[in-house]
Amino acid sequence: MKGMILVIDGLGDRPVEELGNKTPLQKANTPNLDKMAENGINGIMDSIAPGVRPGSDTAHIAILGYDPYVVYTGRGPFEAAGVGLDVKVGDIAFRCNFSTVDDDFIVTDRRAGRIKDDTSSLIEELNKMTIKGYEDVEIMFKESTGHRAVLVLRGINLSDQITDADPKIVGKPPKTVYPINNSINAEKTADLLNKVIKESYKILKNHPLNLSRIKNNEPPANVIIPRGVGLVPEVEDLNKKYGINSACIAETGLIIGIARFAGMDIIDVEGSTGSVDTNLDVFIDTILNAVNNTDHDLFLVNIKGADESGHDGNAEEKMRFIEKIDEIVFSKISQLQEIVTVVTADHSTPISVKDHSADPVPIMIYGEGVRVDDVKRFNEIDSVKGGLLRVKGSDLMNILMDLMDNTHKFGA
Amino acid sequence: MKGMILVIDGLGDRPVEELGNKTPLQKANTPNLDKMAENGINGIMDSIAPGVRPGSDTAHIAILGYDPYVVYTGRGPFEAAGVGLDVKVGDIAFRCNFSTVDDDFIVTDRRAGRIKDDTSSLIEELNKMTIKGYEDVEIMFKESTGHRAVLVLRGINLSDQITDADPKIVGKPPKTVYPINNSINAEKTADLLNKVIKESYKILKNHPLNLSRIKNNEPPANVIIPRGVGLVPEVEDLNKKYGINSACIAETGLIIGIARFAGMDIIDVEGSTGSVDTNLDVFIDTILNAVNNTDHDLFLVNIKGADESGHDGNAEEKMRFIEKIDEIVFSKISQLQEIVTVVTADHSTPISVKDHSADPVPIMIYGEGVRVDDVKRFNEIDSVKGGLLRVKGSDLMNILMDLMDNTHKFGA
Repeated sequence: MKGMILVIDGLGDRPVEELGNKTPLQKANTPNLDKMAENGINGIMDSIAPGVRPGSDTAHIAILGYDPYVVYTGRGPFEAAGVGLDVKVGDIAFRCNFSTVDDDFIVTDRRAGRIKDDTSSLIEELNKMTIKGYEDVEIMFKESTGHRAVLVLRGINLSDQITDADPKIVGKPPKTVYPINNSINAEKTADLLNKVIKESYKILKNHPLNLSRIKNNEPPANVIIPRGVGLVPEVEDLNKKYGINSACIAETGLIIGIARFAGMDIIDVEGSTGSVDTNLDVFIDTILNAVNNTDHDLFLVNIKGADESGHDGNAEEKMRFIEKIDEIVFSKISQLQEIVTVVTADHSTPISVKDHSADPVPIMIYGEGVRVDDVKRFNEIDSVKGGLLRVKGSDLMNILMDLMDNTHKFGA
Repeated sequence: MKGMILVIDGLGDRPVEELGNKTPLQKANTPNLDKMAENGINGIMDSIAPGVRPGSDTAHIAILGYDPYVVYTGRGPFEAAGVGLDVKVGDIAFRCNFSTVDDDFIVTDRRAGRIKDDTSSLIEELNKMTIKGYEDVEIMFKESTGHRAVLVLRGINLSDQITDADPKIVGKPPKTVYPINNSINAEKTADLLNKVIKESYKILKNHPLNLSRIKNNEPPANVIIPRGVGLVPEVEDLNKKYGINSACIAETGLIIGIARFAGMDIIDVEGSTGSVDTNLDVFIDTILNAVNNTDHDLFLVNIKGADESGHDGNAEEKMRFIEKIDEIVFSKISQLQEIVTVVTADHSTPISVKDHSADPVPIMIYGEGVRVDDVKRFNEIDSVKGGLLRVKGSDLMNILMDLMDNTHKFGA
């Protein structure tokens, strides 16, 4: 039996006044999700723990059966893996912005005018960087989308116990990085990073791409500002742990990075935007093709759009996107055979909060063998009455593996 | 958004035959609590864990987000803090009784005739005590209500690994205190305590107050018997931990002691008795004044009476007290704005048990943003069907902080 965890990012919500005090999911017309709920087992889930407000990253780490309090050392490692940098245990990883500084090294644009140019030529020059006294440290950059990039430091005696360089506002220079503890390794890494930032300016300020941007009155991408430092953690291989062959279908680098850490294969979704305008027809075709035509037996799927509407506080858009995925995605998912499907969210992104909240998310499991309860609709309110009651994200993999008949008896 | 945890001490119960096999809360007429339940989210809570019979102290420690298995070293430290002794981490603290012993040092009354005299003149003399060989240990007493007092030992090389002095019955001398392990510190502390008990008799037996009690045929308060030893634990400041400004409104020293440990401000309730005859009008006025006219944003409130009726096995009295707090307290609480209110209990005190039990307690959360479920009554039976399902006391602070929009995202 195959299995799928389909995460509708940020799906959970609170009652919204303009929707008649219903949640977007409750108000949405979702005949396919409801049909699955009616023929499945339902409940609510705390992806990390009750009252703990999850990031998308920590929630997915928990849902895959890892302890986020151990594995999640910072966002850097997962972003770096997400863009395809082959990070290794012990590396120090950062997410970075290409930013703009003036001649006095004052940040004038944190995102270099949300640069849309291909930054790979900038990265190519940055990757030639060596810092005097730190010749033993490998310094690796890689571009991500827009103004985003990642940085990985590889070497002995490095530490992630250092402060952030991001000044968060314009009008100030990049922050000097300091060690958080008084270890020599932290001191060394902080000093190195300060020099990397300065050196990036030297390398980038006269780069042809930037000279051309200046000519076009666009802010040059003339400095790298790292943040979200993390020590690359050791992560047990998901396939070995559960005896499976798993793949991830997701739109955002962060989720893909987590899947890479877990040792999952990555299946691209062509032309996905990570937003409500993503091409859901391509998305569902990608899923169906993966389920039917590959030898993977476990899939982690993440659809991002609803989370974005939550962050924007746009109830109507969130509701419509839910209806759209019901129509395009779940009309097909509900017809799959020989697969146990979990539909849930990583966290709530309530319209009223415009950010993640700790409200539990609805969860349903649909497929052969599940104990069908009498819940008829999939949403934050009805799902509470289902047969799963209230579960934790960290239990999900085991529950699913058991329904896939893929667990070993503990004891005799 | 402000928040309040309103604990109705010992509220939970089991079906009572004389109430038609309903619980006192179920049988009681509680229109205001029910209105809050109908417009709130409901569930049941294990304040510590399923099947663990909580004390009021350990339950409150858990509800405030601390691990009682770490923080609760004994009752002494919390009693001592409750009466206002400025205990410090590492102190050894006891609760004590003023008792009566005869000339042969045999206890004839464990509570010195439930002495109602002001015992501060006795304490004053006791605080002059020094024990030969232990001049480096500070010996501090403080009076509490009636026959109760506390004792704190402050010094190096002390231990709480010692036995109790309380013989529990009359007709025997105070028990000799022994070390539980074979550390020198435990041996030293046991020896010191035995000498403190003997010395208390020397100091108290001819005290004018006791001579006058003997003349009046009242048992003299002529010895101190310590019990409930505990090492004063290190407790993280609640305000720093959650970024709040918290206050406690409670009737009993034990709860106030826990709140002091947590760094909460204490708001007195004038003329409260900790019993079913407490002045609830003053109580609700105190709450309303604190919510409306102070800059505190989190309140822990404990109303004690129902627990006492439970201990007494008085179903009718428990039910009537619940009706009284519904009418006087919750008629006003239900009208508060801009606050998320949790109503729950620390534990059940069933009529049939006459002591605490591990039966989970009902819990409801009322205020802006909660996912309203279809529970219409607040009690042990109906609340089970609510949207919170079954939660733990240790999760409560996080859940409340999230609804107050006062949590930080874990991850991104």
